[in-house]
Amino acid sequence: MSKKIPYRVVLSEEEIPKAWYNVRADMKTDHRPILHPGTLQPVTEADLTPVFCEELVKQELNVKDRFIEIPGEIRDYYKMYRPAPLFRAYFLEKALGTPAKIYYKYEGGNTSGSHKLNSALAQAYYAKKQGLKGVTTETGAGQWGTALSMACSYFGLDCKVYMVKISSQQKPYRKAVIETYGAKIIPSPSDTTNIGRKMLSDNPDSTGSLGTAISEAVEVAVSTEGYRYVLGSVLNQVLLHQSVIGLEAKAAMEKIDEYPDIVIGCAGGGSNLGGLMSAFMADRLAGKTAPYFIAVEPASCPSLTRGKFAYDFCDTGMVTPLAKMYTLGASFLPPSNHAGGLRYHGMSPILSQLYHDGYIDEARAVEQTSVFKAATEFAKTEGILPAPESSHAIRVTIDEALKCKETGEAKTILFGLSGTGYFDMTAYMQYNDGTMTDYIPTDADLQRGFDAIPKLPGIQ
Amino acid sequence: MSKKIPYRVVLSEEEIPKAWYNVRADMKTDHRPILHPGTLQPVTEADLTPVFCEELVKQELNVKDRFIEIPGEIRDYYKMYRPAPLFRAYFLEKALGTPAKIYYKYEGGNTSGSHKLNSALAQAYYAKKQGLKGVTTETGAGQWGTALSMACSYFGLDCKVYMVKISSQQKPYRKAVIETYGAKIIPSPSDTTNIGRKMLSDNPDSTGSLGTAISEAVEVAVSTEGYRYVLGSVLNQVLLHQSVIGLEAKAAMEKIDEYPDIVIGCAGGGSNLGGLMSAFMADRLAGKTAPYFIAVEPASCPSLTRGKFAYDFCDTGMVTPLAKMYTLGASFLPPSNHAGGLRYHGMSPILSQLYHDGYIDEARAVEQTSVFKAATEFAKTEGILPAPESSHAIRVTIDEALKCKETGEAKTILFGLSGTGYFDMTAYMQYNDGTMTDYIPTDADLQRGFDAIPKLPGIQ
Repeated sequence: MSKKIPYRVVLSEEEIPKAWYNVRADMKTDHRPILHPGTLQPVTEADLTPVFCEELVKQELNVKDRFIEIPGEIRDYYKMYRPAPLFRAYFLEKALGTPAKIYYKYEGGNTSGSHKLNSALAQAYYAKKQGLKGVTTETGAGQWGTALSMACSYFGLDCKVYMVKISSQQKPYRKAVIETYGAKIIPSPSDTTNIGRKMLSDNPDSTGSLGTAISEAVEVAVSTEGYRYVLGSVLNQVLLHQSVIGLEAKAAMEKIDEYPDIVIGCAGGGSNLGGLMSAFMADRLAGKTAPYFIAVEPASCPSLTRGKFAYDFCDTGMVTPLAKMYTLGASFLPPSNHAGGLRYHGMSPILSQLYHDGYIDEARAVEQTSVFKAATEFAKTEGILPAPESSHAIRVTIDEALKCKETGEAKTILFGLSGTGYFDMTAYMQYNDGTMTDYIPTDADLQRGFDAIPKLPGIQ
Repeated sequence: MSKKIPYRVVLSEEEIPKAWYNVRADMKTDHRPILHPGTLQPVTEADLTPVFCEELVKQELNVKDRFIEIPGEIRDYYKMYRPAPLFRAYFLEKALGTPAKIYYKYEGGNTSGSHKLNSALAQAYYAKKQGLKGVTTETGAGQWGTALSMACSYFGLDCKVYMVKISSQQKPYRKAVIETYGAKIIPSPSDTTNIGRKMLSDNPDSTGSLGTAISEAVEVAVSTEGYRYVLGSVLNQVLLHQSVIGLEAKAAMEKIDEYPDIVIGCAGGGSNLGGLMSAFMADRLAGKTAPYFIAVEPASCPSLTRGKFAYDFCDTGMVTPLAKMYTLGASFLPPSNHAGGLRYHGMSPILSQLYHDGYIDEARAVEQTSVFKAATEFAKTEGILPAPESSHAIRVTIDEALKCKETGEAKTILFGLSGTGYFDMTAYMQYNDGTMTDYIPTDADLQRGFDAIPKLPGIQ
């Protein structure tokens, strides 16, 4: 107790994990299989290899290996920005006057501004290794597009990014960063795909959605020689790659003889929370002492707290396989006043199953003005201007720390500061000038999305 | 030689310097004294205390103490983002095919996006300690304004930032970051000061200059109860605070048994290069083996390479004291196509004297398209999107590394990556789309600035 815990716990380069942790190998109940959209049968390697790189398909379907070795070349690229620091939030604790000990794993210290680079590097590496020419993807808030363009520039891969049209208009600088790394941006919906042309003919003024951008990117990948599709969240392989966050966080906490009572992460598609909780979830699944896990989502896009646990398409165009997950329906769109990311209609099948089975203890939905209030409080005390997404976790962390203040409990809280908000200043401007508003969908709003979830008699 | 040098050398928290290094105590010839603009006599503590905080005035005039202790509270705030990492640029070396060993000290990993926070924290601390209500300052590219607004939010100080009008228009997001930390931005020239009103009546369409913004900020500081003025570069106190960069860089290199043959830094007002070279310049001044120092500046604002070494005002309004420095004249403005910072007409008196006396070996002016070419090459290989300012150092580093490739010499190069370019994407967009241009002032252009340098008979 006498030894002062430093502000930043930094591991050495050798302590970067040598293997990713595959939580599926430990899950008591695996998530339901992904289904082929035509046959409604579980997808096979053969079904997926036209869409994804071969090695990534293997990872996607791997339920058996607890650890999958990280190739040396990927680890070398990780060394550009990893190990990522674990911070003790002394200044925030003091400002709150809480007895809680607050830690955060900071994944925003690279130019992509988020944890997304952890999976982008892996996916680009395997694409290059397979001899591909390039990859396609979609991006909403832009963090994934940036991460992938960076990774592709390292490996000399072509990169086409379908960017939700409204984002490409509202975030010209984010677009410029992506282009600086050599990727090509296509605002979605676009006239470069059948799906995009159909969306435009139905609604010429469409500002796009993540689901549509996914459909376009997949269509181009499967129809272009030497290309595959890559995705920054939701997939099993992404949670696998993101496990480096939790493995490092646990190792750093062990160095200072700490272990979290609560782990808090924002959840959109699930890549951040899935990564952060990985090593701690391993403890839970092994029956050991483990933290209380809280998934935080926007009240305006509440897939875990108000969605259905059902088979649904992963995209708006209904070209992707079906996944059993918490979903608001592939046609669901968060309201136009929704700032930042966390706007996906579904949730990672792994996270969905863990939540369904009670291994993730709680999901909590928070409104965006309260999120930006927490973000500003964090910035002014801890210095780092957080991403809107990560600020959902900050909101709940502050709430939990204030509960500790009331009860006098000195709980140890770990949250994921998954990214910075440097390219989200429009949202901060709205908060600063008081024009930001909240929106909670009505039950009728949600019902419209639920109505679009496919009815699959006999499949559960 | 067998032990592999890591990609990042990170010191421990205890290794953050406990004292700043004051190079003036070691200089063979001190810089000529700063002169009071009214009396033309060397300024005294009493002259400066209405403008600057008392403790900072003492630091400004201190020629005797080699080391000045860093107060514990400042060191605690340094721990938010320090020690800053020293990187080995393995990926850039490989891309260039050079035998040179390239290192860079990365100071952009905090939300201000630059090294400026090192001095902002110190200046805000001393202002608070003196019981002041607030501080005023100016900002051009916006890095200093961001750093100061952050530091003031930590200490609960009011902060008024005079931002060059063209910058406040071109960088709404930079403005939004500064406002998120609670500072007030006033586009300069403004109608809040006598100088500003005069500038506007002479030229209502003025887009402002750093020199004018300084005049305005000083005027407000000296005429408002409980306020003082703070400055992010040029001053002796700023170079003192920035010495943490060089002290850490040297300590990190010692850990891996390295010592630079060449130290390269960009120089606008001098805060970055002054900081980076500090501990190495101490070696030079002590007659030990020392690096070859290169100061890099924009060809469009060439104070060291083409300026006069003369007494001049530090601001356009001619309200500040006079400093003996390399100057283009207080009325000099870089051309409108000049992107990024490094646009100040003068140069730190300390750096000016060291350059004049041959302790800084070389100043080199580079054109901005070649700078952005280097910046893009760096981003695509090393990952970090560099600030336009820092990219001047990258340009020369690449040039020197390519010379090594020709000669086969394995020189050890250290450069300062003083900041990130996340809020400078307009300039990157111009480079990406081919609309960026270069401009080298003609001798006649420069003569107009030189004509404004005051004639001071009998003073040298």
